Amino acid sequence: MLSEFDLIARYFTRSPREAGRIALGVGDDCALLSPSPGMQLAISSDMLVEGRHFFAHADARKLGHKCLAVNLSDLAAMGATPLAFTLALALPQARDEWLEPFSQGMLALADRYGCELIGGDTTKGPLNICITIFGEIAPGAALRRDRAQVGDDIWISGTLGDARLALAAYRKELELDPVALETASERMHRPTPRVELGIALRGIAHAAIDVSDGLSGDLGHILEQSGLGATLDVDALPVGAALAQQPQDLKRRFALNGGDDYELCFSAPSAKHSAVLAAARSAGIAVTRVGVIEAEQGLRLTDAGGAPLQLPLSSFDHFASP
Amino acid sequence: MLSEFDLIARYFTRSPREAGRIALGVGDDCALLSPSPGMQLAISSDMLVEGRHFFAHADARKLGHKCLAVNLSDLAAMGATPLAFTLALALPQARDEWLEPFSQGMLALADRYGCELIGGDTTKGPLNICITIFGEIAPGAALRRDRAQVGDDIWISGTLGDARLALAAYRKELELDPVALETASERMHRPTPRVELGIALRGIAHAAIDVSDGLSGDLGHILEQSGLGATLDVDALPVGAALAQQPQDLKRRFALNGGDDYELCFSAPSAKHSAVLAAARSAGIAVTRVGVIEAEQGLRLTDAGGAPLQLPLSSFDHFASP
Repeated sequence: MLSEFDLIARYFTRSPREAGRIALGVGDDCALLSPSPGMQLAISSDMLVEGRHFFAHADARKLGHKCLAVNLSDLAAMGATPLAFTLALALPQARDEWLEPFSQGMLALADRYGCELIGGDTTKGPLNICITIFGEIAPGAALRRDRAQVGDDIWISGTLGDARLALAAYRKELELDPVALETASERMHRPTPRVELGIALRGIAHAAIDVSDGLSGDLGHILEQSGLGATLDVDALPVGAALAQQPQDLKRRFALNGGDDYELCFSAPSAKHSAVLAAARSAGIAVTRVGVIEAEQGLRLTDAGGAPLQLPLSSFDHFASP
Repeated sequence: MLSEFDLIARYFTRSPREAGRIALGVGDDCALLSPSPGMQLAISSDMLVEGRHFFAHADARKLGHKCLAVNLSDLAAMGATPLAFTLALALPQARDEWLEPFSQGMLALADRYGCELIGGDTTKGPLNICITIFGEIAPGAALRRDRAQVGDDIWISGTLGDARLALAAYRKELELDPVALETASERMHRPTPRVELGIALRGIAHAAIDVSDGLSGDLGHILEQSGLGATLDVDALPVGAALAQQPQDLKRRFALNGGDDYELCFSAPSAKHSAVLAAARSAGIAVTRVGVIEAEQGLRLTDAGGAPLQLPLSSFDHFASP
C-alpha cells in the first residue's frame, strides 16, 4: 500500500521545465506561479465523479487524459494559453496498477501543451477527480460567452455527436458495428481539446464556448449571456464519422443535443469568414459554419432547405437527471 | 429540486467587489484574474470528503467555514494575501436547507479576507468539496518549507491540541465536561486561518507550514525539505484551553501529534525575536517559542527541564490509516 507522500512523489512530482513561470511546484503549502507581465490568468475547475462522468471500470490511462482534456477545453474556449494545473484526487485505495496509467495518460497530455502539474491534494474517498487549470491571455482578448453580436456567423470545430453515440451503445439504446463503436468510443474517452484553435481565434471570434453538455444548451449560454438569439441549420452540423452512418433523425438529435464532444462553438463576424478558415487551417482542425446570431431571442432550427424544424432541445443538468 | 444553474446562481454568484483584480467571475468557461503587476500567484487545492474530513451530519454552516479556512490557512503558511477561490462541489442532492447555510458559512469567511469566489463546478455524487485558492505575494517573499536555517527559533501561533481533543471525545476515547467539549469542538469545526500573521511574518520568518496533520509531521516537512533537524521542548507547546485541563501525557501527545488546529509553525532567526513578537501583536495572535533548528537531522524532544523525552510521533497519512 502506497502512503500519501509516496503516491505524490512517485506519480505526480516532476521538476518543472518552465522554471520561469512555475516558481515553486508540488511540495509546499502553495505552488507559486509567475504570470507573464500584463497578462490575465484564465482559471477553470472541473470535477469528475465515478458513475457520473465515467464508468467504474474506465480505462485509467484514458481517464487521466480525459480529466485534463476537459479542463484544457475550457481554456481553449477562452482562447487562453495553458500554463499549469492542480489535481485533487479522492481514491478508494492507492493502487499502482491504477495510478501509473492514470498519471501517464494525464501527464502525456499535459506535456503536449506544456501545462505543468503544480500541486493538489490526495485523500481517501469515493473516486473523485478535481482539476483546476490556469492559462494566460492578454486583457480584453478572451473569447467570452457574452460577446456575440447580431449578424455573427456561428461555427463548430471538428464534428459532433460521436461521444453521444458511444454512450447510446453503452446504454444498449442501439447497436454499433465494431469499427463504428471503436470510432465513437475514442471520441468519448479521448477527446481532443481545441487549444490551438482557441488561441488562433483571438481577435477573430467574438464569443466562444466548448460543447460539453450538448450544442443546444451550450450555444444557449452564449445567446442568453449576449442577450441575443440564433437560427441554426441542423443539417449543416458536422457529424462524427460513426454518427454519419446513422439515420437522419438520430444524426440531428445527437449532433444538436449530445454532449462530451469538447469541440468549440464560436461566433465571428461574417467579414472574418476567411480569417476563421485560416485560423482553423493553422490549428489543423476543420470548422463548419452552422448558423447566424440574430437579435430575436431564442434558438430557431431549420433543415438544409431553410424550413423550420421542431426538435426536442435538451441541455444537461447534473441535478435534474435521474 | 434545484437545477445546477439555479444552484450556482442562487448560492454562489455574486458581483465581484474587487473589479480590478477579478476581470471575470462565475459564469464563463474560465474566470479571469489580474494579479498585481510583478506579483507571484500562490495557489493551493484542498479536497474534503465526507466521513474522512468531516462527519456525515456536520453543521453545514461550520463546514462551509472550515472548507475555506483550511485553504486560507495554506495561503497564511506561505505569507500570501488572499485574492480569490474556486469551488467544485459534488452533492448527493441539491437541497436548499444544506446549500444556504453552507454557502453562508463559506462566503462570510471569504468576505472577511476579501477573497472572491470566481468559479467552479457542481455535480451529483458523494459529498466532496474541492477548493482551489489564489493569493499573491512578491517574488522571493514566500515563507517556504525549505528555507529553515540552523539556529532558527521554532514558533507556534495560538494553541494546539483542542481539535484533537474534540475528536477523542467524539470517538468516545474520553469524556469532556460540556464547557470543555464546546471549546474543543469550536476549534475543530471553526478553525481560524492565521492569514494576518502569515502576512506580518514576511521578511521575518525563514520557513513556515500550517499545522493540519499534527505538529510532529508538519514540522517534519520543514526539517526534511530544509535538510535539517530540531529539538522541541514538548512542555513549551501552547495547549488549548480545553486540553490544558487534561493529564500531562495527553497534553503532550495531543499538542505534538494532534491535527486540525491550523496554527502556523514557523522558524525565524533568533535575532528577529522581537520582530516576531511585534508581528504577532499586530496580527492579534499569541506566538510561543518551542524549539530550535539544528544541523543534526531528525526531531528530538525534551521536557521543560531539557531532559530527553520519548513520545510516539505520528504524522497523518490518508492512505495508511484504516
